[in-house]
This record gives sequence, C-alpha cells and structure tokens, in this order.
Amino acid sequence: MLEQTTEINLLYDFYGSLLTEKQQLILECYYHDDWSLSEIANHQGTSRQAVFEGIKRAGQHLIEYENKLGMVAKYRERDQIAKKILSKLSADPSLKEELAPLIQQMID
Amino acid sequence: MLEQTTEINLLYDFYGSLLTEKQQLILECYYHDDWSLSEIANHQGTSRQAVFEGIKRAGQHLIEYENKLGMVAKYRERDQIAKKILSKLSADPSLKEELAPLIQQMID
Repeated sequence: MLEQTTEINLLYDFYGSLLTEKQQLILECYYHDDWSLSEIANHQGTSRQAVFEGIKRAGQHLIEYENKLGMVAKYRERDQIAKKILSKLSADPSLKEELAPLIQQMID
Repeated sequence: MLEQTTEINLLYDFYGSLLTEKQQLILECYYHDDWSLSEIANHQGTSRQAVFEGIKRAGQHLIEYENKLGMVAKYRERDQIAKKILSKLSADPSLKEELAPLIQQMID
C-alpha cells in the first residue's frame, strides 16, 4: 500500500493537472492527506463505494497517461544519468560543485 | 505558417499519443505530409470545413496539454541548461567529450 501510494503520488505530481477537479480532490484527500474512504464519502455526500471507484478510475487515468507520455520514466532516467555525470565529475570537486545545481535543474 | 507548423509538429511529438487516432491522422497529413485540406477531405470522405475544424481543435488540444504539463517548455529549458554545462566543460575537452552524450540523453 505504501509503495502504491508513493507511485500514485508521483504520477499525480506529473499528471494531476489532466484530471478533473473532483478527481484531483479525492486523490489528494486519499493519497496525500490520508483520509479514509468513509471520511471522503461523508465530506462529499456520496457513498464509500463511489469514492473507491472514483479513486480507482483516477489512478487508472494516471497510469494511462504515464503509458502514453512516460514523463515519470524519463524523470527516473534523467536522475540515473545525472548520478553517472556527477560520479564522472568527482575528479574535479570544484567543477562538480559548480555544475551540480545545473544538472539538478535538468532532472526536474 | 512555417513557424506555426514547426510549433505544432513539436507539440505533436510530445502529446500526439493523447489525441484520438483520427486526430493523429489529420494532423500528420496536414502538418507532416503537407496535404491540402481538400486532399484530406477527399481521402476521409468528409468536407474541407470539417477537416479545417478538426485540425484546429486537435491543435487546441495540443496547446492545452502544453499549458498543463509544459513538456515542451521543460525540454527547451533542459536544452539551454545543457548548453551552459557544455560551455563550462570547455576547459577540459576530454571530459566534455565523455559527458556530452550523457548530457544529450538528459535533454531528450
């Protein structure tokens, strides 16, 4: 569950803006603020089952976006490449220190 | 027109997979293969006006995706940062040569 939460939060960071406002709200309540299904259902005046289905569907949308656009996969690739570059810069600490912030900017 | 074509082609490279197959087809015919509206209309058995509207709408979708996700803007930023990094590596040509392909991979 924790691993799934981390993954959905990451996907949400990248693709949340493509979801509807309602989908954004329930995902934020559930994954970010750690509300229970019942708490969200009470807050939204709907059923626990409807919230469950809504979270599931929104999560599927996020996964579909990643399958099509691969932003998270590319982010992870950049992170790995940055580590390689920084390791190759280790022989020159002052150059490494100068370039590290720029390389970090390229990951994000 | 040429500038708009280049911009739409770039947006299409990033977000084309989010469009419907039909939208992908007309954008490819129009912007990539340089067909006229009438040629596309004949090929699809529809009107020139319908093709025109379809191209316009698909283009708007691409712009909306960019406004929400900013993949093209971030790609351009990475390209600029890469240039800065390569310029700072100029003092050490062999290191620059070694790191250039990795930095290029981070742009894409």
